[in-house]
Amino acid sequence: MSQQKISVGILGATGVVGQRFIQMLEHHPWFEVAWLAASDRSAGQAYGDAAKWRLKTPLPDRVRTMKVSNASPDGAPRVIFAALDAGIARELEPQFAAAGCAVVSNSSAFRMEPNVPLIIPEVNADHLALIEKQCWRMQSGGYIVTNSNCSAMGLVLALAPLHRNFGIASVFVTTMQAVSGAGYPGVASLDILGNVIPYIAKEEEKMEEETRKLLGRLDGDHVEQADFTMTAHCNRVAVEDGHTESVSVKLNRKAEPAEIISAFNEFPPVPQKLPTAPAQPVVYDAAPDRPQPRFDVDRGKGMTVSVGRLRPCGVLDYKFTVLSHNTIRGAAGAALLNAELLKVQGLLP
Amino acid sequence: MSQQKISVGILGATGVVGQRFIQMLEHHPWFEVAWLAASDRSAGQAYGDAAKWRLKTPLPDRVRTMKVSNASPDGAPRVIFAALDAGIARELEPQFAAAGCAVVSNSSAFRMEPNVPLIIPEVNADHLALIEKQCWRMQSGGYIVTNSNCSAMGLVLALAPLHRNFGIASVFVTTMQAVSGAGYPGVASLDILGNVIPYIAKEEEKMEEETRKLLGRLDGDHVEQADFTMTAHCNRVAVEDGHTESVSVKLNRKAEPAEIISAFNEFPPVPQKLPTAPAQPVVYDAAPDRPQPRFDVDRGKGMTVSVGRLRPCGVLDYKFTVLSHNTIRGAAGAALLNAELLKVQGLLP
Amino acid sequence: MSQQKISVGILGATGVVGQRFIQMLEHHPWFEVAWLAASDRSAGQAYGDAAKWRLKTPLPDRVRTMKVSNASPDGAPRVIFAALDAGIARELEPQFAAAGCAVVSNSSAFRMEPNVPLIIPEVNADHLALIEKQCWRMQSGGYIVTNSNCSAMGLVLALAPLHRNFGIASVFVTTMQAVSGAGYPGVASLDILGNVIPYIAKEEEKMEEETRKLLGRLDGDHVEQADFTMTAHCNRVAVEDGHTESVSVKLNRKAEPAEIISAFNEFPPVPQKLPTAPAQPVVYDAAPDRPQPRFDVDRGKGMTVSVGRLRPCGVLDYKFTVLSHNTIRGAAGAALLNAELLKVQGLLP
Amino acid sequence: MSQQKISVGILGATGVVGQRFIQMLEHHPWFEVAWLAASDRSAGQAYGDAAKWRLKTPLPDRVRTMKVSNASPDGAPRVIFAALDAGIARELEPQFAAAGCAVVSNSSAFRMEPNVPLIIPEVNADHLALIEKQCWRMQSGGYIVTNSNCSAMGLVLALAPLHRNFGIASVFVTTMQAVSGAGYPGVASLDILGNVIPYIAKEEEKMEEETRKLLGRLDGDHVEQADFTMTAHCNRVAVEDGHTESVSVKLNRKAEPAEIISAFNEFPPVPQKLPTAPAQPVVYDAAPDRPQPRFDVDRGKGMTVSVGRLRPCGVLDYKFTVLSHNTIRGAAGAALLNAELLKVQGLLP
Repeated sequence: MSQQKISVGILGATGVVGQRFIQMLEHHPWFEVAWLAASDRSAGQAYGDAAKWRLKTPLPDRVRTMKVSNASPDGAPRVIFAALDAGIARELEPQFAAAGCAVVSNSSAFRMEPNVPLIIPEVNADHLALIEKQCWRMQSGGYIVTNSNCSAMGLVLALAPLHRNFGIASVFVTTMQAVSGAGYPGVASLDILGNVIPYIAKEEEKMEEETRKLLGRLDGDHVEQADFTMTAHCNRVAVEDGHTESVSVKLNRKAEPAEIISAFNEFPPVPQKLPTAPAQPVVYDAAPDRPQPRFDVDRGKGMTVSVGRLRPCGVLDYKFTVLSHNTIRGAAGAALLNAELLKVQGLLP
Repeated sequence: MSQQKISVGILGATGVVGQRFIQMLEHHPWFEVAWLAASDRSAGQAYGDAAKWRLKTPLPDRVRTMKVSNASPDGAPRVIFAALDAGIARELEPQFAAAGCAVVSNSSAFRMEPNVPLIIPEVNADHLALIEKQCWRMQSGGYIVTNSNCSAMGLVLALAPLHRNFGIASVFVTTMQAVSGAGYPGVASLDILGNVIPYIAKEEEKMEEETRKLLGRLDGDHVEQADFTMTAHCNRVAVEDGHTESVSVKLNRKAEPAEIISAFNEFPPVPQKLPTAPAQPVVYDAAPDRPQPRFDVDRGKGMTVSVGRLRPCGVLDYKFTVLSHNTIRGAAGAALLNAELLKVQGLLP
Repeated sequence: MSQQKISVGILGATGVVGQRFIQMLEHHPWFEVAWLAASDRSAGQAYGDAAKWRLKTPLPDRVRTMKVSNASPDGAPRVIFAALDAGIARELEPQFAAAGCAVVSNSSAFRMEPNVPLIIPEVNADHLALIEKQCWRMQSGGYIVTNSNCSAMGLVLALAPLHRNFGIASVFVTTMQAVSGAGYPGVASLDILGNVIPYIAKEEEKMEEETRKLLGRLDGDHVEQADFTMTAHCNRVAVEDGHTESVSVKLNRKAEPAEIISAFNEFPPVPQKLPTAPAQPVVYDAAPDRPQPRFDVDRGKGMTVSVGRLRPCGVLDYKFTVLSHNTIRGAAGAALLNAELLKVQGLLP
Repeated sequence: MSQQKISVGILGATGVVGQRFIQMLEHHPWFEVAWLAASDRSAGQAYGDAAKWRLKTPLPDRVRTMKVSNASPDGAPRVIFAALDAGIARELEPQFAAAGCAVVSNSSAFRMEPNVPLIIPEVNADHLALIEKQCWRMQSGGYIVTNSNCSAMGLVLALAPLHRNFGIASVFVTTMQAVSGAGYPGVASLDILGNVIPYIAKEEEKMEEETRKLLGRLDGDHVEQADFTMTAHCNRVAVEDGHTESVSVKLNRKAEPAEIISAFNEFPPVPQKLPTAPAQPVVYDAAPDRPQPRFDVDRGKGMTVSVGRLRPCGVLDYKFTVLSHNTIRGAAGAALLNAELLKVQGLLP
């Protein structure tokens, strides 16, 4: 193991998002996986035996033979990526924060807590200041930082350029979400082959509240949520990776289509050079029938959000289609980018 | 062939909708297929050779051996079901109307013509009076009657109870449309397997204008379109049959959820006893994750529209999911029901 | 509840096959569901709450409100349909047989026991005599009768006409099996969307041994297995219902294609009038590209096996394609047909 | 355009395989696309307008603006990759060969001609000598070289190690072929969603004859076909890329499983350093449920064939599963590798 890299651990290492963490951390210039934890059932096994590897790139040999640890802070590194179900996260993440760890979490458990930052580095990096309001931070140096739900992520990256340039009054969104968003085994094939499921538990609520927090304004010890009206319809479709979203918006200030397209394409990347940050966070694709999961989900190594089909909306002002990679930009890549931001800001323990 | 039944012809008999006509007309108590026409390439062949039968019920033997005619009114019956592409319909349908035929058309060619009725029997049967404004009617007795686009059909049947009871101010709809809506061969498998296509040519325009005409008010020689604002996002998904739609509405008059559900469930069927009319045109399904194409598309033999997931909308008043069978209620069944209505109103030549 | 019908129970009532039993027993002329049992987790609940109903026809109202019982023979009817996992079946089915029940089982647990009949009524009804060799039968009158694995069922019905008429020397089969064969939730959508899985645990072994037992000859207290050589390759594909099989055979006696097709089409149905028995057990479809799951799986209400594409084989004698409905003919329908055979033979307790 | 690279042309440039040629030739160290031809309908247009680009990597900008030429040898480069339908290939390829071009063809038109080499560089590079028997070669220097059908390619690469080490007596194969093998638009989505099609026109015949020619022995002016018996069952499944094949073989010489696995893994790559040649042509995957299209199709950048599940066969000796990428190893990559072989052998004009 190289001396220079920062050791990191993964909580929930065997799941779909845990596997993405391993995949994205392999060959990472700053971080190195040194610790993997999963449920008690897996603890003690070699990772290659405990996990059913589901990704197209092979499981790195070094990780295959690593022993899975108990999900306890004892012996864990100071930087923890967490990919836990909400119920378990609610119990475990505070233990790691209390033990002095930076918990970079993909879970929904604490996203809406007033003093927990919910971060997209290109959008609201200033919200990181909330860390200092966490009791763990004061006591042990540890803290929790979260990224959003996979469906909110693509939407917010598409809305942020409009919010910043024109202001947003209303948002209407219908999602067509990939099955990988439900983890593994997740959606049964009998449920989704040739079908659409017009329901994902708690997804609409998360999407609506997280979007407003991400686009909100930091006000001392909390975030003042953005004040636009919003509604989300969430559906599951037979796609492997990539959430497609039909979006309508009403803007506070009148804008021409060309201005909106420029706002998308010119939305600035993070100012720092972060390894996982895409050169262009949002790309507007002018083809009449794009973006599509088949072709566009991997744009920017899965970290760029694709937008297309901008046209007038008969109810609000404009409508367009958004596509983002739900397990990269919407989960593991999002947390990784958050950790990179923490590193360059000197906030890692 | 029985003496009592009315002979009907099918224009465009070899396509997906033409096949549905044949399927639904087999054993029909009033109508009997006596004439099949298709492109010049098919004319002269036995239907079983000319058509690649795509339905799960077998091609009726009697139809298999019928000879395909040229698409010309000579020798055609007086009642014609038309399932033609718009460009061809624009040329051929007037020839049949001029020759004295009742052209019951599924094509988009003339739907928005001021003197052509666009009909859903449960919704706007009174618009049939427009027939009398057609020049063909006056000269030969022939006329054209149309049904709507498959995506508008389910939406309008779900909106009509709300429009009638509470008035509608705004409609937002995102569709997830089945591949059968594109005909055969239609959507290439390479385009849709594991994918969503966020574009269907001209579909959003049709959906928006047809919905307003269907819910409009007959005013002498034309229909005064309904005056709500509306926007449609149309997507193609990997489903065989059944268009799923995420809908938000703003009502003119405040309504409780229970009132809305009652309005759906109690929306009256056609008063006459029509063979293809469902006993209940709209069914509200209270399960949290329904309607779904897999389970609900064949409700009411494909003629009933399913609605579910009624809940408050953060931008408009309410949101819900609609599902309808796109080649039955949305195409062949719609035209057949129109023909049955014409029959009981004494309007068939 | 009608007085004349025979009360039956279902063990494993909440699973995919248990649901098919309920569906097929609704309106059955001889049997009536009077008792439903499932795991301890479900016991005590109303069936409609305990089961996630997965079939396209609605859950019968009468069954929805039935209380799920513990999986114990106390209070159970004398006729039990069993749809249990093999491990649980091994424990529970003997308890019911010992208590005097006719256990008509779809499980693999006892299929290969020498004194347990493995039955397809059209093929080897005489094997039922093995019941009399079971200790439970002698003590309490109870016994176990089984049907085959879903993949063996279609194959054996296609082979039986050849075996009976020409003798079989060798069989080669590759299956492309539907996901419903794995139960619910069964195959994860992430595993099968756009994919083929060339492995189903223990399936090839079951298919090879059950085929030989089904086509074997009753010899006193056991079945002398058929002596052809055989090999099976089992694959899972993204199909909902219907196992497609590519089959090659070597016959003991030379036969012309027309003789083989006649053997398929003229394979006799069960001589008794059984409600679930198809009029024609095997249908040869002469179209060049059939059978296909989409079109042919429901032939004979899912009880008829479809065969097509008969042509010479470069290694053995002939090759052809077989399709059968895996949860009807291959599971619930198979057991139901076995129970009907037991009834007409006076073997039900 | 760089001075050092060899200009090449693509016949049939707009199709699925033509697009793969463009994709694989972008950044190729030896070849450079200098000419694109397609049907008369496309000729004269910019390639980006004429082709509906279907690949996940973007259409190279340089190619987008290239003008599509008529499919005539005038002005065409001396090295032509041909991706034409058989009927058109039969007419056009000889014109290019007569004009002095090396026609490296993916078409089936001339594969089985006695003096046309059908080549897999790792398997039968010596068959290239047949070029010298072609009349065009003698007159203009031009010739035709072909690669096999996509379904034969994976099979032959898996059989070659066995053929070379142990001899082959019999081969049984069932394919489950991806939709991309049928080109674009190719298989209609209504035909394949949730379905298996047990028929691909002429595929079984091609697979059987091409396999024997590829594994045959060069004998002066023709290839003496390999003399094993063989049978192929070809099926289409709902997979985008990757043909999966269930194979049984009888060997001439007894072999242990470990010897067979070694034969697969140690099958030598081409001795020359060819840019498109995989380091390991055949990889044996020891996992119990592999290879699978989802995970393994891109092994060796789509040029390595994956084999798995070796086990005894009850009819022949062994059975196993083969997977290969049908549009890379099975089409464009195959032709490109052939051209690279021609180059290092000094055979390019």
